[in-house]
Amino acid sequence: MKICRVNMANLSVSTEDVPEEWKYLGGRALTSAIVAKEVDPTCHPLGKRNKLVFAPGLLSGTTAPNSGRMSVGAKSPLTGGIKESNSGGTAAQKLARLGIKAIIIEGMPEGGKYYNLHVDKNGIKVQEEKELLGKGNYEVIDVLSKKYGEKIGVITIGQAGEYRMSAANISVKDPHGNIRSAGRGGLGAVMASKGIKYITVDDTDAPGVPIVNLEKFREAARTFAAALREHPITGEGLPKYGTNVLINILNEAGGLPTKNFRMGRFAGANKISGETMYDIIVDRKGKPTHNCHAGCVISCSQVYNDKEGNYVTAGFEYETIWGFGAVCYVNDLDIIAQADRICDDIGIDTIETAVAIAVAMEGGVLPFGDGPGMLDLLREIEKGSPLGRIIGNGAAVTGQVYGVTRVPVVKRQAIPAYDPRAVKGIGVTYATTPMGADHTAGYSVAANILKVGGEVSPLAKEGNVELSRNLQIATAAIDSAGLCLFVAFTLLDNPDAFQAMIDLINAQYGLNMTANDINDLGKSVLVTELEFNKAAGFTRQDDRLPEFFEEEIPPHNAVWDFTGEELDEVFEEIEKEEKVLVPV
Amino acid sequence: MKICRVNMANLSVSTEDVPEEWKYLGGRALTSAIVAKEVDPTCHPLGKRNKLVFAPGLLSGTTAPNSGRMSVGAKSPLTGGIKESNSGGTAAQKLARLGIKAIIIEGMPEGGKYYNLHVDKNGIKVQEEKELLGKGNYEVIDVLSKKYGEKIGVITIGQAGEYRMSAANISVKDPHGNIRSAGRGGLGAVMASKGIKYITVDDTDAPGVPIVNLEKFREAARTFAAALREHPITGEGLPKYGTNVLINILNEAGGLPTKNFRMGRFAGANKISGETMYDIIVDRKGKPTHNCHAGCVISCSQVYNDKEGNYVTAGFEYETIWGFGAVCYVNDLDIIAQADRICDDIGIDTIETAVAIAVAMEGGVLPFGDGPGMLDLLREIEKGSPLGRIIGNGAAVTGQVYGVTRVPVVKRQAIPAYDPRAVKGIGVTYATTPMGADHTAGYSVAANILKVGGEVSPLAKEGNVELSRNLQIATAAIDSAGLCLFVAFTLLDNPDAFQAMIDLINAQYGLNMTANDINDLGKSVLVTELEFNKAAGFTRQDDRLPEFFEEEIPPHNAVWDFTGEELDEVFEEIEKEEKVLVPV
Repeated sequence: MKICRVNMANLSVSTEDVPEEWKYLGGRALTSAIVAKEVDPTCHPLGKRNKLVFAPGLLSGTTAPNSGRMSVGAKSPLTGGIKESNSGGTAAQKLARLGIKAIIIEGMPEGGKYYNLHVDKNGIKVQEEKELLGKGNYEVIDVLSKKYGEKIGVITIGQAGEYRMSAANISVKDPHGNIRSAGRGGLGAVMASKGIKYITVDDTDAPGVPIVNLEKFREAARTFAAALREHPITGEGLPKYGTNVLINILNEAGGLPTKNFRMGRFAGANKISGETMYDIIVDRKGKPTHNCHAGCVISCSQVYNDKEGNYVTAGFEYETIWGFGAVCYVNDLDIIAQADRICDDIGIDTIETAVAIAVAMEGGVLPFGDGPGMLDLLREIEKGSPLGRIIGNGAAVTGQVYGVTRVPVVKRQAIPAYDPRAVKGIGVTYATTPMGADHTAGYSVAANILKVGGEVSPLAKEGNVELSRNLQIATAAIDSAGLCLFVAFTLLDNPDAFQAMIDLINAQYGLNMTANDINDLGKSVLVTELEFNKAAGFTRQDDRLPEFFEEEIPPHNAVWDFTGEELDEVFEEIEKEEKVLVPV
Repeated sequence: MKICRVNMANLSVSTEDVPEEWKYLGGRALTSAIVAKEVDPTCHPLGKRNKLVFAPGLLSGTTAPNSGRMSVGAKSPLTGGIKESNSGGTAAQKLARLGIKAIIIEGMPEGGKYYNLHVDKNGIKVQEEKELLGKGNYEVIDVLSKKYGEKIGVITIGQAGEYRMSAANISVKDPHGNIRSAGRGGLGAVMASKGIKYITVDDTDAPGVPIVNLEKFREAARTFAAALREHPITGEGLPKYGTNVLINILNEAGGLPTKNFRMGRFAGANKISGETMYDIIVDRKGKPTHNCHAGCVISCSQVYNDKEGNYVTAGFEYETIWGFGAVCYVNDLDIIAQADRICDDIGIDTIETAVAIAVAMEGGVLPFGDGPGMLDLLREIEKGSPLGRIIGNGAAVTGQVYGVTRVPVVKRQAIPAYDPRAVKGIGVTYATTPMGADHTAGYSVAANILKVGGEVSPLAKEGNVELSRNLQIATAAIDSAGLCLFVAFTLLDNPDAFQAMIDLINAQYGLNMTANDINDLGKSVLVTELEFNKAAGFTRQDDRLPEFFEEEIPPHNAVWDFTGEELDEVFEEIEKEEKVLVPV
């Protein structure tokens, strides 16, 4: 395995051996370690001192189930802090099979030129790009698939990235030619600032990933896969309804943020729910069950067609449907699907964009519930008009520009699809994760609402600090393994599955890690990220929710009632501990 | 003297005795003390927890020369920190003569209604306002002068404030019906958030300001006035050419930031200089010398007419002319005057707006040097169009929205008209003042360039930390006295004038303050402000200049070379000292 470094200032490529300290890191652990070591925390996120790091997970490229996630890391132009965002698609597995532990992109090209990178068994080639500038992700993938063949891996940015919008994401081609995204934190703008429109990855004749103990690895993979198939969420709920199974569940729980976080229930929930969507998909001959990377045994994705049966979008997630639905007060699933399609194409985070539109609605730019107006706004983003640039820079900018005080962000990143007052565990995660408001950083919804990994009341404070802390630690480890976060549902309920995950890593690398070591890995990732943010100027005051969450949210009339001291307990102990770098 | 409190949530007005601790505070010392005591540093600046405080200076309302400044304080929507911005005009003197030490405006009205406040000898009346909503400051002042008579004092916001723009200022009517502004930090947006369009101040039959030792006061006033008239800057340069005398001086020094801070000299400097402007004003029968408040013996203001001899603008300052001139690469003084006129009318800070436009030029919105395009952009602000809202929210927002890395701000406030690389003392002030980049917070230009108050090289680091520290302390005291900052030129060079200033305060209040006490007053103001900012989440990382100042600036090829540690020395000692609250 090696680390590839691309210097965009002089267009040079070099290859390095993996330093000992990074040898057993992957995914988020590796991107965060590299960013923390090599990036000045005070630098401009779109300047020459920032670096963009791609890293497949520890298990990526193997036959381990659901191990195809790729982490992308940098200093975020949205939050100003460290960022890791990960994605499905085929790139992680291809990079791993090519023996690439990480690609570090640094420097900036002169004169605003754009380039593409082509990665194959011979290394990385940097070529000037003109043809696909200004094009959307669907066209980029289409053109490159014709040029290099259907199997080519593609990592790309759309127009939002080229405009250097703080909500721009990085998109990754999936096995079906559809779009998966490293969505949050504006990493697409960082890729644009490096002058890179896309990266193609060809793993033809790649050496593949060495496995130290193949027998043990296969056995653990079988155990892991079986456990995923047996669990009611990863084996039934997600495969059938996708993540959108959550609309009805959160609506029932009173935690579905509606009309810019005014209410916890949405009258139109039934029209946009996973169950309704399933019927529509089946009726229109779409695919209710679909995977985002090879080796996924959950297949929570789907293909959503329009009334004429034509493809509209894939990977149509709960958070997207909530965003363009409940929070904007829109109850038309076809409009929401179009919104998702446009966002995928222009390469922009659906959560940030939807919340920015809700804030624009709050500011009087368009009325709540105006679905066609919402689509028009997305087209403004594509055009790069002033209004589009406002929205495309996220909820915090939109709020400031329109003088709105009801702006649901933490660390300038939009709060996603679970109200922190009615699902308090996730509120603790929003407040404290170094990523800015991010449900995937410690998905307390599991124990608060889904009764997975124990039960912690969503409406009381008790237990939620501990819950969020433990999940943030576990998540940091899972993100480092390259595993899809959804395996956590099974891991939390099934100790054998958890052991199988550890066995997979041990078998691949010839290690003897224990559950404690995995825990230490998660902690070390968090400490690395927290230290970066501190050096960037973050304080405990950034670990707070906006003022307006003191308002009661119906139906439970819950309020956000954690004190600063209580929130500070999340990481107080971890930060004091001796830093554990690599579990070997 | 009393403190008046207006609660906009229930439209109630109350009057309080001045607490002992605030008795000998005025102006900035008082607004900062009140904001620090009563405003939650983490609150939303446009929310119900922020407060807007107006306070005349310690000497305001008396015959002390140049003592008519009014401080306005709040948590700033631009910087997120504490803010004091002060203005000339007639309001400070009228409020002081009415016995009002401060007006504290708190809470927010329901339903987005607007009100006006009328202040007279009977107290404060709150009345709903409809007629003047959406109107510019010139029309507001015109209508109110007709309604209440020419002598009425007016404090008002224009359209920029109503749009809650982060660069919106608060304007104050001057003795001639022209516009003076508490320009920086977006306090106009805070006034709008309180639902107040304007405040009228009628001091008919006001009791006036009591003077404990009238004889001593008069003598000190005479000494002070004579000293101001004798000093070459306050007695000659400023009266004749206004502040715009600085264009040629800074251009000569290579410290006139040009084309978004690319160069230190502007080829068009001669066309926009104070000397050129003087000739134009005289030629067009304007007024080269004009005062902004009664009792001013400097009269640095002027009335600038167009080619037909019609009034365009007054108080046409160096920083404004630099902003719409050199930094935007525009060399047409008539266009710059129109820009100033529009900004005064819509109520927006000229420095923040000009730098935001330069950043927009950097981002490709319009070409550098496009004067007519610049005026069009200002009209977009007036309209509240998306583009206008971007610019009206300042340089930091404009930079983010257009993905620009060359954004000259500190604490999100635009850097004004002196390049920090070629005038290093002012750079130290920009970096460290709790106000965000602000030349008036510690005008090191005096010793760096004008050779007033000693000589410190503008191009070397030596002595500049100490210079900035001392000037920041002295300025905090001057801002508290209600004195125009320009008296500092005389104070720094003339110990008798400095003593006269102390004598004025002592005579008025029956105190025995020494120079040390004045120093302690200044320190205590700074410590109060620094503590607020710290509690709001500011760290030493916020006391830094943007990355791009490492680039050499011609003609001296100077770079910004202060380390973080060196900058931290500015306040290190002061913060450690025992807090001295009130010198009595």
